[in-house]
Amino acid sequence: MDVPKRVCVVGAGSWGTVIGKMAAGKAGAGEQQFESQVRMWAFEEMVDGRRLSEIINQEHENIRYLPGHSLPHNLVVFPDLLEASRGADILIFAVPQPFIGEICNRLKGHVKPGAIGVSLIKGFGRGPEGLKLLSDVIGEELGIEVSVLTGANLAQEVAAGTFCESTLGCRNQDHANIVKSLLQTSHFHVSVVSDLCAVQLCGALKHVVALGAGLCDGLRLGGNTKAAAVRLGLMEIIGFVRIFSPSSPADTGTFFHSCGVADLIASCYAGRNRRLAEAFVVSGQSVAELEKELMNGQKVEGPNTASELNHYLKSKHLVDQFPLFTAVHQILFEGKPVSDFISYLQKHPEHM
Amino acid sequence: MDVPKRVCVVGAGSWGTVIGKMAAGKAGAGEQQFESQVRMWAFEEMVDGRRLSEIINQEHENIRYLPGHSLPHNLVVFPDLLEASRGADILIFAVPQPFIGEICNRLKGHVKPGAIGVSLIKGFGRGPEGLKLLSDVIGEELGIEVSVLTGANLAQEVAAGTFCESTLGCRNQDHANIVKSLLQTSHFHVSVVSDLCAVQLCGALKHVVALGAGLCDGLRLGGNTKAAAVRLGLMEIIGFVRIFSPSSPADTGTFFHSCGVADLIASCYAGRNRRLAEAFVVSGQSVAELEKELMNGQKVEGPNTASELNHYLKSKHLVDQFPLFTAVHQILFEGKPVSDFISYLQKHPEHM
Repeated sequence: MDVPKRVCVVGAGSWGTVIGKMAAGKAGAGEQQFESQVRMWAFEEMVDGRRLSEIINQEHENIRYLPGHSLPHNLVVFPDLLEASRGADILIFAVPQPFIGEICNRLKGHVKPGAIGVSLIKGFGRGPEGLKLLSDVIGEELGIEVSVLTGANLAQEVAAGTFCESTLGCRNQDHANIVKSLLQTSHFHVSVVSDLCAVQLCGALKHVVALGAGLCDGLRLGGNTKAAAVRLGLMEIIGFVRIFSPSSPADTGTFFHSCGVADLIASCYAGRNRRLAEAFVVSGQSVAELEKELMNGQKVEGPNTASELNHYLKSKHLVDQFPLFTAVHQILFEGKPVSDFISYLQKHPEHM
Repeated sequence: MDVPKRVCVVGAGSWGTVIGKMAAGKAGAGEQQFESQVRMWAFEEMVDGRRLSEIINQEHENIRYLPGHSLPHNLVVFPDLLEASRGADILIFAVPQPFIGEICNRLKGHVKPGAIGVSLIKGFGRGPEGLKLLSDVIGEELGIEVSVLTGANLAQEVAAGTFCESTLGCRNQDHANIVKSLLQTSHFHVSVVSDLCAVQLCGALKHVVALGAGLCDGLRLGGNTKAAAVRLGLMEIIGFVRIFSPSSPADTGTFFHSCGVADLIASCYAGRNRRLAEAFVVSGQSVAELEKELMNGQKVEGPNTASELNHYLKSKHLVDQFPLFTAVHQILFEGKPVSDFISYLQKHPEHM
């Protein structure tokens, strides 16, 4: 029997807390390959005059980010990042994208060699070509292999234990088996695909398509048009993967996993990006105003991803090949009238 | 210049009338390869004491099936099927599935050799193996090549002229070009794929998946579970195509067209089958009762397709490979409790 593996979840937002809860559920109940204690790093903040880490450890509930869900007692929060992650064999990254750079800086040199990284973070990092996969950002910084878990996984619903599926993008079959053992239950099915890049780009780019779907909803164009916009969005995701990662397999099987069609559908028919874009059309307010008012100050990932993507497409002279991505950015940020949205779709390369 | 082609739409329900309107729009405005008069056969019925065919020809509105939309004057209705279809070079079939057998019987021997058939009909025909493609039923009966047009095309929305996409399954490139010239506009984009079988099965089987999506909605399981059910439904559609039509291409490109993901999404997030199944869960009434009450006596295609499909799967010992299709049938018609729905999905071959 191998030495039990230590698990650390880096981040205690709603999704990180849910993953911590699930991992602790498995580790605490018979999965002997894992230490029964699962560690979680929480950014220390005060809630009603108390430290969040203390509240979680004493009351076994994350009243700030996942209220109403009791957490296993073997999920233990550490407010110190290095203490939380010390000796971890599996590091699950669940912080908002803007913080991952600093997290990596602080962890650098303190990560156990051969540790398995799993990123739950959506979005892009920055690299010499403009965009960089976050798995590469984390992996290169910490010197570990990093897989990606993404799918139609709204945190509140996963916490409630309703059936859903997720996709693990992972190039290392041993790592895949370990992560699957840690997280899969009869209500949370994890499928494994090797095209880490496609899985990850699906997770980032769906936000941009969901903004387009929200524009459709705001324009009250009906179900046919919205289905066409979502479909063209999927085609642009696939097209982008082929350009961004020429080493991705030519077959499109990955897009049929939860990370692809399922997460895209869920995001385009619910989700905050869709809602933001719909409100943009209906209210006439700016994205910044809506983020403040509508989203209660919570950052929505889509607009930022749309901008980074647009910058990349411009620099590569690819704007015309991605009319939906381009429409979203030009309408949300460059003052193009939303009534032009359909004319972008009509210029889709598939329609030429 | 070739002799202009004569077009006849067989059927004047809402979708037939919309297609007739679009064809007449193109034929009446410069598309010189078509006779400017487009003919439409309407099953004669009385509306407010007048014949429907007379009303449409005099008032240029189908007040029974497409009220509120004016029709071009060059769309002319004939109540006699043989007169409507006489000499037609393009025959577009838009009758409900149960009537196509009789329509073919009446047309047999009266169809112009080399005429192009286009089926808009969803569902299955009957053959020696239990199920038969409707394009084959029509084609063999009339001795013509029959293509299939399907996609996320809710008739009312297409009539309103909002942007949408459709897919033509067609093995004959000349026919495809002609049909595209007749129907495509800047607001109705027609893509052509050669896998006629996959296109057609998508159109029939989406109804069954939409019933499953409606069960999910009725159970109030949330967006993650529904996205998983829709995705697994898509996997079953793809799996069924491979078994039913081994000659279909191994690549899955067809399913990315409007006939595939887009129509499936539209049907699972709106549409009558979804609504019926949701009401089945919420009300506890039978499918037959709901069709009477909820649907105003309108026939919903899904339940019938689900039954024919289940019969076929049983006869081929394939039930276990299609748990979502099976769940829909057993819950709607065999008294299995709807609370078992998720346990079917958990037994999906992809999850084993």
